[in-house]
Amino acid sequence: MKITCSKDLLIHAVQIVQKAVATKAQLPILTGIYIAASNNILELQATDYEIGVSCKIEANIDEPGTVVLSGRYFQEVVRKLPGETIEISSSQEDRTIKITSNLAQFNLLCLPAEEFPVLKPLAGETEFKIRDNILKELIKKTVFACASDEARPIFTGGLLEVAGHDVTMVATNTHRLALKKDFIDQFDGSLKMIIPAKILNELARIMVSDVPSDVTISCQRNQIGFSFDNVYIISRVIEGQFPDYNRVIPPNFATTVTINTDEFLDAVERVSLLARDGEYNVIKLSFGNNRILITSNNPDIGKAEESVAASIDGNELDIAFNAKYVTDILKNINSDQLSFALNTPLSPASLKPVDDPNYTYIITPVRTN
Amino acid sequence: MKITCSKDLLIHAVQIVQKAVATKAQLPILTGIYIAASNNILELQATDYEIGVSCKIEANIDEPGTVVLSGRYFQEVVRKLPGETIEISSSQEDRTIKITSNLAQFNLLCLPAEEFPVLKPLAGETEFKIRDNILKELIKKTVFACASDEARPIFTGGLLEVAGHDVTMVATNTHRLALKKDFIDQFDGSLKMIIPAKILNELARIMVSDVPSDVTISCQRNQIGFSFDNVYIISRVIEGQFPDYNRVIPPNFATTVTINTDEFLDAVERVSLLARDGEYNVIKLSFGNNRILITSNNPDIGKAEESVAASIDGNELDIAFNAKYVTDILKNINSDQLSFALNTPLSPASLKPVDDPNYTYIITPVRTN
Repeated sequence: MKITCSKDLLIHAVQIVQKAVATKAQLPILTGIYIAASNNILELQATDYEIGVSCKIEANIDEPGTVVLSGRYFQEVVRKLPGETIEISSSQEDRTIKITSNLAQFNLLCLPAEEFPVLKPLAGETEFKIRDNILKELIKKTVFACASDEARPIFTGGLLEVAGHDVTMVATNTHRLALKKDFIDQFDGSLKMIIPAKILNELARIMVSDVPSDVTISCQRNQIGFSFDNVYIISRVIEGQFPDYNRVIPPNFATTVTINTDEFLDAVERVSLLARDGEYNVIKLSFGNNRILITSNNPDIGKAEESVAASIDGNELDIAFNAKYVTDILKNINSDQLSFALNTPLSPASLKPVDDPNYTYIITPVRTN
Repeated sequence: MKITCSKDLLIHAVQIVQKAVATKAQLPILTGIYIAASNNILELQATDYEIGVSCKIEANIDEPGTVVLSGRYFQEVVRKLPGETIEISSSQEDRTIKITSNLAQFNLLCLPAEEFPVLKPLAGETEFKIRDNILKELIKKTVFACASDEARPIFTGGLLEVAGHDVTMVATNTHRLALKKDFIDQFDGSLKMIIPAKILNELARIMVSDVPSDVTISCQRNQIGFSFDNVYIISRVIEGQFPDYNRVIPPNFATTVTINTDEFLDAVERVSLLARDGEYNVIKLSFGNNRILITSNNPDIGKAEESVAASIDGNELDIAFNAKYVTDILKNINSDQLSFALNTPLSPASLKPVDDPNYTYIITPVRTN
């Protein structure tokens, strides 16, 4: 192999694939970045068997070939190189790769390229297109609600559901649930897949195009592939039955409250400062007299309280929540005003932006003495 | 106690004293911030017995008094308060302090103020003044050379030596030594004190005045005090005999090399990328033909090399160093050109900026096979 390419392009490609490089691998080959050169295209790949990422860039290929280099060192070396152009060439004798740029020269030991599990695009049984900005929004508005605890795997991923023009993403840890809907061009058929939160976060990180462009999603048995720009990502999906989320959303509410989102977030964050060390990070909300009084009490540290103006329609009530579950959604509501809908101190409540009927968040209260 | 003060001033004072708050204290009272209100001055103090810091700010004192509050929570609460003004008042009944700002109210439990070891300014037997920008420079140019290993305590601090007009700070871990000199107004007497690196770093962090101002340094047995603006810092000094650093500095050199500082730093950082995982983080330097060839070799990863132009006066030679000891000084040399002076592959070398005769760095080479 012998190629030259732009340093900036190579850094970009390395940043795209790096999160898929295994750090503590049982198989040493998975700690490497696979590099294939042919037809003026340099392709980088990395996989830890959970996620696989490929990124292609333009390059001048003098001699085609494939090599695998330590992901960690290749990345650090490329980032630090002095020039704008990088030359990479393999030497048959000593199984090293020479990387040169201006007067700097690195000879990195290779990993055995024939052992690398090269990614193949899914032969899509099911395939549809979605705008990258829509997919990114579906992810960002829901993925935080996933469980981090691996005890029940289906809750560590987000459910992607597509039927007709509707696309929905839902995530829950059983104590709170986030649901975001949007629309795509007609898709014939239906699809339900649970995608690991880690992969969703990675996708959202990588999709940074300035102008909206299409992502092609293809599915095949227990795998899902995302293709956009010069990037291809393949991931396993989580097997199991996601609960029927429609049954979790209360059909109606006895109390509906409208609040300024930022004022409420600031107050909740302040009052919960003292609650964090408590067992459940609990804040209490008292709805009445067109105000919400937010309080916390930590016997070891002290008490906090603050009130914010609210427009309350319906019964007055006192209710308690895990403060983190409240702040998580408030940080994801972009509209000035939110609607907080409740029934009783022990039944699930709903929080949503007033101007987006397609975004719903359900939160279960905490029982207090 | 009952006071009102500006939030910004209070945040400033908390930031000054916070590093002295003990985190894992055997004595719970040391996890607190002591607050004393009298004569329109609010004084905050914290100490972990190694270092003590006091900061005074203006405040409206309605009722004088003293309290001690959890350092961690007081800090977080103050930073998050909504208004520009903060009211702090104590309640005799329940041993709490009420902190209010706009509609937010916190009641923090107090620690027993009578147990706090209140800092008293040293009755200075020895006292002199130094400009804060000079003291800061003395610290920043040397403190990185201290040992982090506590096995030999005298090397975990910087030696401050004052005699006549001369002020010198020296730090060493026995493998490298940094020395910076400067001048003060006449001081009658002489002084040698080893100040813990942690305290020197803290001092440099706190001294951020826009215009140069005086720091008054006072010493008393095994303590040293620094007073400037509205801040007072007191620290223990390290007891023991600091080695005679003048004997470490070679009187003359067989080879003197002049190099561009940034070019050399960049090349050393690149080449040492592969050296870090090795046992000693070793780079080799070959001086000859008016170039320096920098190389590293890590059998598990690969090899790196790069050369930079240099003006070499004297014998050519090959020598090896711990790469970190080289980059540490290069990052502290502000002048474009540096002078690298050497004798043999096994004797100490000197690195210094060409334009500052008062800054010296001595580094011991590594023996290689």
